[in-house]
Amino acid sequence: MIKVGIVGGTGYTGVELLRILAVHPDVQVSCITSRSEAGMPVADMYPNLRGHYDLAFSEPDAAVLKACDLVFFATPHGVAMRMVPELMAAGVRVVDLSADFRLKDLDVWAEWYGMAHETPEWNDKAVYGLPEVARDAIRDAQLVANPGCYPTAVQLGFLPLLENGLVDPARLIADAKSGASGAGRQGKIGMLHGEIGESFKAYGASGHRHLPEIRQGLSGAAKGSVGVTFVPHLLPMIRGIEATLYAEMKDPADFERLQGLFEDRYRDEPFVDVMPYGSHPETRSVRGGNQCRMALHRQEQSNIIIVSSVIDNLVKGAAGQAVQNMNIMFGLKETRGLEAPALLP
Amino acid sequence: MIKVGIVGGTGYTGVELLRILAVHPDVQVSCITSRSEAGMPVADMYPNLRGHYDLAFSEPDAAVLKACDLVFFATPHGVAMRMVPELMAAGVRVVDLSADFRLKDLDVWAEWYGMAHETPEWNDKAVYGLPEVARDAIRDAQLVANPGCYPTAVQLGFLPLLENGLVDPARLIADAKSGASGAGRQGKIGMLHGEIGESFKAYGASGHRHLPEIRQGLSGAAKGSVGVTFVPHLLPMIRGIEATLYAEMKDPADFERLQGLFEDRYRDEPFVDVMPYGSHPETRSVRGGNQCRMALHRQEQSNIIIVSSVIDNLVKGAAGQAVQNMNIMFGLKETRGLEAPALLP
Amino acid sequence: MIKVGIVGGTGYTGVELLRILAVHPDVQVSCITSRSEAGMPVADMYPNLRGHYDLAFSEPDAAVLKACDLVFFATPHGVAMRMVPELMAAGVRVVDLSADFRLKDLDVWAEWYGMAHETPEWNDKAVYGLPEVARDAIRDAQLVANPGCYPTAVQLGFLPLLENGLVDPARLIADAKSGASGAGRQGKIGMLHGEIGESFKAYGASGHRHLPEIRQGLSGAAKGSVGVTFVPHLLPMIRGIEATLYAEMKDPADFERLQGLFEDRYRDEPFVDVMPYGSHPETRSVRGGNQCRMALHRQEQSNIIIVSSVIDNLVKGAAGQAVQNMNIMFGLKETRGLEAPALLP
Amino acid sequence: MIKVGIVGGTGYTGVELLRILAVHPDVQVSCITSRSEAGMPVADMYPNLRGHYDLAFSEPDAAVLKACDLVFFATPHGVAMRMVPELMAAGVRVVDLSADFRLKDLDVWAEWYGMAHETPEWNDKAVYGLPEVARDAIRDAQLVANPGCYPTAVQLGFLPLLENGLVDPARLIADAKSGASGAGRQGKIGMLHGEIGESFKAYGASGHRHLPEIRQGLSGAAKGSVGVTFVPHLLPMIRGIEATLYAEMKDPADFERLQGLFEDRYRDEPFVDVMPYGSHPETRSVRGGNQCRMALHRQEQSNIIIVSSVIDNLVKGAAGQAVQNMNIMFGLKETRGLEAPALLP
Repeated sequence: MIKVGIVGGTGYTGVELLRILAVHPDVQVSCITSRSEAGMPVADMYPNLRGHYDLAFSEPDAAVLKACDLVFFATPHGVAMRMVPELMAAGVRVVDLSADFRLKDLDVWAEWYGMAHETPEWNDKAVYGLPEVARDAIRDAQLVANPGCYPTAVQLGFLPLLENGLVDPARLIADAKSGASGAGRQGKIGMLHGEIGESFKAYGASGHRHLPEIRQGLSGAAKGSVGVTFVPHLLPMIRGIEATLYAEMKDPADFERLQGLFEDRYRDEPFVDVMPYGSHPETRSVRGGNQCRMALHRQEQSNIIIVSSVIDNLVKGAAGQAVQNMNIMFGLKETRGLEAPALLP
Repeated sequence: MIKVGIVGGTGYTGVELLRILAVHPDVQVSCITSRSEAGMPVADMYPNLRGHYDLAFSEPDAAVLKACDLVFFATPHGVAMRMVPELMAAGVRVVDLSADFRLKDLDVWAEWYGMAHETPEWNDKAVYGLPEVARDAIRDAQLVANPGCYPTAVQLGFLPLLENGLVDPARLIADAKSGASGAGRQGKIGMLHGEIGESFKAYGASGHRHLPEIRQGLSGAAKGSVGVTFVPHLLPMIRGIEATLYAEMKDPADFERLQGLFEDRYRDEPFVDVMPYGSHPETRSVRGGNQCRMALHRQEQSNIIIVSSVIDNLVKGAAGQAVQNMNIMFGLKETRGLEAPALLP
Repeated sequence: MIKVGIVGGTGYTGVELLRILAVHPDVQVSCITSRSEAGMPVADMYPNLRGHYDLAFSEPDAAVLKACDLVFFATPHGVAMRMVPELMAAGVRVVDLSADFRLKDLDVWAEWYGMAHETPEWNDKAVYGLPEVARDAIRDAQLVANPGCYPTAVQLGFLPLLENGLVDPARLIADAKSGASGAGRQGKIGMLHGEIGESFKAYGASGHRHLPEIRQGLSGAAKGSVGVTFVPHLLPMIRGIEATLYAEMKDPADFERLQGLFEDRYRDEPFVDVMPYGSHPETRSVRGGNQCRMALHRQEQSNIIIVSSVIDNLVKGAAGQAVQNMNIMFGLKETRGLEAPALLP
Repeated sequence: MIKVGIVGGTGYTGVELLRILAVHPDVQVSCITSRSEAGMPVADMYPNLRGHYDLAFSEPDAAVLKACDLVFFATPHGVAMRMVPELMAAGVRVVDLSADFRLKDLDVWAEWYGMAHETPEWNDKAVYGLPEVARDAIRDAQLVANPGCYPTAVQLGFLPLLENGLVDPARLIADAKSGASGAGRQGKIGMLHGEIGESFKAYGASGHRHLPEIRQGLSGAAKGSVGVTFVPHLLPMIRGIEATLYAEMKDPADFERLQGLFEDRYRDEPFVDVMPYGSHPETRSVRGGNQCRMALHRQEQSNIIIVSSVIDNLVKGAAGQAVQNMNIMFGLKETRGLEAPALLP
């Protein structure tokens, strides 16, 4: 059994980790921390967990965490950065679901997150945990930076195009839409049901923290700089991201082989599902599941390739991908604990 | 492995059975029938099942069904009634999720379902499959009538009160609310998102088919006739039933022991969760799970006991309870395949 | 033109007042106050008002308010209570949408609102502003206590039964459901979209502040004490209240004349619509409108009369009724500014 | 008083026309037709209209329609096309909310609508009724083709850019999202609440009927051919369209004057609201109102201009724009009957 600790467990990512790990046969959750809720049983805050956990939230305790095999951080940015060195020194492995170790360029990180990075040496060693790109490095990593939700949906959709140099890397557009759980569980007026129910809007259209993360990932795939426009939108629902991606084909003759190329790229990926050409993936088809489903489209004689990519932002976009990374790190079957179909309807 | 057949699989109950059985370790689904969709892969209709089933819908074929160990009927009323005898003769066991075998009084059945019952001999033998009441009979039954969604939520909430004779059986009120999936998956204008989104109403307030089923169950618990008023309502959401139950205590002094009495009644029930006194169960706490959660309330010096009871109408109210019944019938652990926590948020 | 001031305008009740008054031909809004948002244009907070108001929120200023003909209070409880005397002295008329002047028994008020009432002399003079009951008194009132949202829907549904002494006043049950806007616009975790979207629950089942207000109103109608059980529930939508009311007929023979009696009671009421017997009022049929729609039901030979009553909690349950009261107070046509049909779909 | 007839009134566009016209001071609705619902009072189908109309749906009757001053068609395509000549001959004016007269190239029309156009002579004379482009022609038109919902949101957002030749007309992308009411009120499984609630997807990504309409309008603005990619998506809500538009600036130096240019372009337009640079228009800010609100964005040093444009698909995208056109045609104030603020929250 892998002894797991969770730091910062009161948010949606925390409860989602607990939900998934509750039926993971190889894991025992030994602690879940929250300064603000220390002492409260997790099942009191999240009644879906009644009968699954006796655990209560506890103050972060270095000794307890250092006794874990793996610690997940589900904290605001700036927390993991400071706590990681002590855990690393103790030989504990870490999957950080926050943004602390996602960007290799720490000037860019500082600009978007409003603070200087305090542990650049660990940032260097951290592996960006997108299994479809970095599976081998993840296997051996002590510190994995779990990707952001939007970056997961966007990167997986663009990767085959960029890796094969088929599209103009300077003209990438990602129009992405997310359910409200992506904003976390804090008492903000802007996230009230009365504010976002039955309405829709773009947000962060002039710049969003996930933009540099997307750019970094796509640049890696393109082996060169990319120009990407990324506009997130807020959906009046709880779970799910859909990203509609637009790119300009260098050679329209390549359209014919795109479907095969995408299928080949992801044939062995347990969590990426390339649907038939012309399909329309629905976010509900991945609700609660770790899949990314995608499909390709072209309009008449246009030279724009359109990719629609969907994930559950809390699963493949956060907790599920974190468990997938854990499975890889500990040599388990990659789908362990993540087998159940999505909840539809 | 239990070989399972599903008759009438295109509705929400059918896909929910497939979702649950996809990860049930002791079951193999060998056929799923649909006259209208014969030939269509189930994963084309329900993309959450992509990667889980190679199965396509097929015309109902008696030979194939008779080779099953168990057949689930997820059909409109009137279908199971006619097909059951042949399966019974072949020694196949059946869990019928429709209403065909739920009412012992066939005159009442005929009145509410608008047709005469054609296999009254099997109706006599059918066991009403509410495990919390009839576990032993279910174990040995060849034919189980799976309870309706509202009747499950309402009966479980009233049972301890009636079994112990604590309330006036002539004055029971059940104000129940259901998500839209309870109405099935048919192209009715009244169930369009444009019609029921962002709105709420009562329906069937002058009489609903689940009323006689509720009355039958409660009469059994009370060992005598009951007077029950049942008003269903339609919620602008997909899954979940909440029933608020009102009953008049014969002796207000009994209030003090009610919480203990409910806890005792359901202590060994794996799927009934009596929450602390004064709690407010949320339907999301059982979304996708087989639990019924309930809590008790009293207002000031009133002699009305209030019970709030929640289930997922597609799980404990349909497919989950059917699998629970199957587990009982085949001597499996009752929670088999039903262990995962509900999906929250 | 009536010069109107609004105290406490940043909540949903405030914006709803502004929305209605924007097209009221006899009203000019001369100030809207908010301590926290002083200086912010109202159209910046509420973009639906762009082009309708140049007004900005301002610090409450006694001189400005005293220059108004009418002041609406859309404040938390405890505010109007303290500010009213000065306005009364200046001859300003007030419609208070908070709970400060709704309960005649100030001990009960203190118990439910957690503070002593500071201006009991004005509480004595305040008229409870349910026009269908107190139109004449409202006309002459200087201070009107605008009813709560639930109490409006519940009282209007029960009134004809109690006024005519047709039901057992000791056995009244009101099972009510409200959209999320009823909880106001404050950054509470429990009201996040991620918490209440796609879910349903009872709340305040052991006692809610609107219970004493309902009891007071129903006692008035019954001319004697009543026993009423009131359970509110939270709907995953924004606007709308539905109350399902249950009462026990003293004489079942009276059922036949109930529909006529309700129609007679409300024939001249511009905002109460008694629908045909057996109808199911939908909350969307009153969304944005000032109507209360209701319908009657009976199940088989039961002696329970069921009334389903719907309102928009922000309109007939708050701002619309406040404007209706203003129209009465100033001798305008009662429907002035409230003529537009509800927004459906 | 303008005598108005409505052909095909049972859909959402029909009820929306009735809602708006109910309080239009210069209009009398003299008939509303529906073959399927002839005889049913409109207020029985749409209870929000109770008290506003005594009218019942009637069989289409040429004599009655010819006695109208104006007839609105809210019919499926192919109907207005055949009925218009007789009305034109009788001197009746027509606003057609269907697609019958929107496309000038009838080969394109035939391709997308699957039938040959039967009255090309009237198609030639029809005026495409986007007031912000064709106000003068609308004033004198006998037959106005009311624009589609997506085309309205998309064209208004792109117009200032194309009219001024500031962007590459070959690289236009419109990522648009619509509430479910845009699909009409027919009993399709795909539009059930159970199917589209709490989910999101693209649809028609390989080609949608509004694409040629958009292309026609944008070509007109650009005075030359345009290359436009248009992907519609389905939102889990009822009303509202948001279109996020992407275009490539020819000269990045022009960015600085774009805000002013948009404001100038729409300064005198009563229903187009250019919000401050960097705003995020919400669909709820136009719910039930006839506004189009839009805002501009740029990401860092990108040369992509981003426009977010929102409308209510049933109002500015259908019935509201139709009434706006009527007002223009009959010399009324353009905002007549359309003054009320949007319903928020």
